[in-house]
Amino acid sequence: MSIVDATDLVEGALAGERRAIAKLITMIENGGDVARGAIAKLYPHTGNAYTVGITGAPGAGKSTLTDKLIKQVREEGLTVGVLAVDPTSPFSGGAILGDRVRMQEHATDPGVFIRSMATRGHLGGLALAAPQAIRVLDAAGRPWVLVETVGVGQVEVEVASATDTTVVVLTPGWGDAVQANKAGLLEIADIFVVNKSDRAGSAETIRDLELMLELSQLGDWRPPILKTVASTGEGVGDLWDEINSHRAHLESDGRLSAKRSIRLRNELRSIIVERLHEQAGAICAGERFEQIAASVIDRTLDPYSAADALLSGEVK
Amino acid sequence: MSIVDATDLVEGALAGERRAIAKLITMIENGGDVARGAIAKLYPHTGNAYTVGITGAPGAGKSTLTDKLIKQVREEGLTVGVLAVDPTSPFSGGAILGDRVRMQEHATDPGVFIRSMATRGHLGGLALAAPQAIRVLDAAGRPWVLVETVGVGQVEVEVASATDTTVVVLTPGWGDAVQANKAGLLEIADIFVVNKSDRAGSAETIRDLELMLELSQLGDWRPPILKTVASTGEGVGDLWDEINSHRAHLESDGRLSAKRSIRLRNELRSIIVERLHEQAGAICAGERFEQIAASVIDRTLDPYSAADALLSGEVK
Repeated sequence: MSIVDATDLVEGALAGERRAIAKLITMIENGGDVARGAIAKLYPHTGNAYTVGITGAPGAGKSTLTDKLIKQVREEGLTVGVLAVDPTSPFSGGAILGDRVRMQEHATDPGVFIRSMATRGHLGGLALAAPQAIRVLDAAGRPWVLVETVGVGQVEVEVASATDTTVVVLTPGWGDAVQANKAGLLEIADIFVVNKSDRAGSAETIRDLELMLELSQLGDWRPPILKTVASTGEGVGDLWDEINSHRAHLESDGRLSAKRSIRLRNELRSIIVERLHEQAGAICAGERFEQIAASVIDRTLDPYSAADALLSGEVK
Repeated sequence: MSIVDATDLVEGALAGERRAIAKLITMIENGGDVARGAIAKLYPHTGNAYTVGITGAPGAGKSTLTDKLIKQVREEGLTVGVLAVDPTSPFSGGAILGDRVRMQEHATDPGVFIRSMATRGHLGGLALAAPQAIRVLDAAGRPWVLVETVGVGQVEVEVASATDTTVVVLTPGWGDAVQANKAGLLEIADIFVVNKSDRAGSAETIRDLELMLELSQLGDWRPPILKTVASTGEGVGDLWDEINSHRAHLESDGRLSAKRSIRLRNELRSIIVERLHEQAGAICAGERFEQIAASVIDRTLDPYSAADALLSGEVK
């Protein structure tokens, strides 16, 4: 694949062509220089989409909720791009998560583009790749981009929180399911949703969340706690209203651009760390490493001088 | 402090002078080029000490057990260096862990050198610094070096397992205390000690460990499970025998040098990763980062091209 292909795809994506969008996201998943070149071309056309992250424990009903949010966006006459991110799956682009259900319902709607993204086994790969895929949807002119993650692992929380509004979806009795990352979820939530709120324990869950918020240091936005039953659509209208309220809050007084600036700086840092990790990997493989390690092992060269030799010889 | 000082200290340490040993370890804790220069000079004189790591949950009695092992070494007429590592403490060099007790008992014994080492807040600092401190004691001619860690955190497990023989100390009912790192402890143990074995639940603990060993893939050494009561000294003789058995096992068929080679290669890799992390830190601070980040934020430069610019400008 040459740069020329990517140029064609970039033009196609900018014109909103579904096939070009899909191909570019696959290219981003696979990584490499062509993908980077494509991102460079798309980048000046980004920054227009409003992004919403949807995260929470598996089984909390995120897919169904996302599906209902798609409907809300469409009812306003707007188009939407959806990225479903699953770092635990080796598959992508296809029918993972709740895609099958949603695809059926939205398959004939050109205003909805849904895409799954999975891991390619790169270190930190998905956390860096997801923002690029969001960028493709953004450059393709989708005013709303929804980013759903399958669970509450580190990468998923990172991906879902790298959006303008982050919705954390819980269910009655959620505590045990996400024990390991309770603090992380509290930190990233702009809106809490207690889904399946027709089940027992809903009131206690809301009380627990309120107590935790009382004990937290909040900024100038206090995350609201909403009750939904995604399967029936109950409460989804309120969620949509709250997403728009949070958006209005961010768009006043330059908060949105400040938030996005921080995100871009963090992304730039992550790319640099990733690149240096690649360098470390390259330095620590290869024949030169073996030669120098042998000198360390026979004690003719100390480990720090050996590291110096390897770094000066390899890093240009 | 100049290189000349380090040369004097290195000579002092090689002659076994306590003050020089202590100063060099402080220098290593603080890091920097002088410490690296000192290690380079000491390094050809290392590889003679046999190292024993002692790790386990806080309160398992590791300090008391270490104290009793010191006595065993001394009864054989050999000298010993002891490093007590506590990544959670901001203090070092002084009376942390069980040092106060032990120092009293061994204070007048020139054959025992005990030293605490704590964190300096460097990323991965202690995991890299501890092997250097062990090297000082090794070069100073201590035939045995005991390395005790305060808990079972990642750094502590890393430090304790970077020894020739790793002793994992548990107590009846240990499971809950080290839940998060059970698998890690099983993996690094050459010898299991169930200390405070006069307490209830001792037999169950041994059964649990045996079951876990049954389910593990073991190499050519099956970790023995010993019962001790460190406070009375019960079972410590058996532990000392097992440490020597494990040593004999490693010293046959070149296993010890193979194990040490792997350790040195891992250390070399860690040093390289650490150096590149330092580089990342330097690149992501400074005025140049601010300028380039500003271009990313106003969308005149994409994040990948920005990373290229920062890396090519800063990494030499």
